[in-house]
Amino acid sequence: MSEHPEAPVAPVGAFEPPYYVAVFSTVRTADQDGYRETDARMEELVKGVPGFLGMDHAQTPGGLGITVGYFRDADALAAWRRDAEHRAAQRRGREQWYERYTLHVAKVERSHAFVRPEG
Amino acid sequence: MSEHPEAPVAPVGAFEPPYYVAVFSTVRTADQDGYRETDARMEELVKGVPGFLGMDHAQTPGGLGITVGYFRDADALAAWRRDAEHRAAQRRGREQWYERYTLHVAKVERSHAFVRPEG
Repeated sequence: MSEHPEAPVAPVGAFEPPYYVAVFSTVRTADQDGYRETDARMEELVKGVPGFLGMDHAQTPGGLGITVGYFRDADALAAWRRDAEHRAAQRRGREQWYERYTLHVAKVERSHAFVRPEG
Repeated sequence: MSEHPEAPVAPVGAFEPPYYVAVFSTVRTADQDGYRETDARMEELVKGVPGFLGMDHAQTPGGLGITVGYFRDADALAAWRRDAEHRAAQRRGREQWYERYTLHVAKVERSHAFVRPEG
């Protein structure tokens, strides 16, 4: 548990509303075979979706994982939903990797970012 | 890092849209004195807000924390924003506990929950 991770960590910033957010909260199974590779591939794929703004992830060891994706508009989200490789990964997730998950898709009305002043 | 935490872990479920979600993503400072107590107090307080639906939290050790709060409507969120003790905790957070944070407030249009079938 390092206070100084190698890469500087920062959450995705605040964008000009409206934009979309997809909140994906998961509890994983004991069988995580292939998860890491697919997760990395999905991260690569989503970056190619026009209107994708960014993504944050936090994982409590042995507990809840939360991934939040940010998209410019409903079309960007729809494109990501329709992606064939993404759909195959979702199927495998339900069959193998996820014990439970909840997905909430929402339109952002207000946002705010804080960065500590230097000094 | 246990695969079998003592309390069963489950994300907050899906509600009937529309409802509101507040996504709060943070990077904390080295000085976390008093954080735990205030965090517990805020969790207790928010549960008393009429229209509060639930809350999820995930924390990557040494990395990003994501807290997601769910509220029935904009009035419920406004009540929580106005709470004096909550406002004092936010001020202390900016002064002491947070290196960076981003808050996104959004209206949920669509949601879905998955629970693995038994067996």
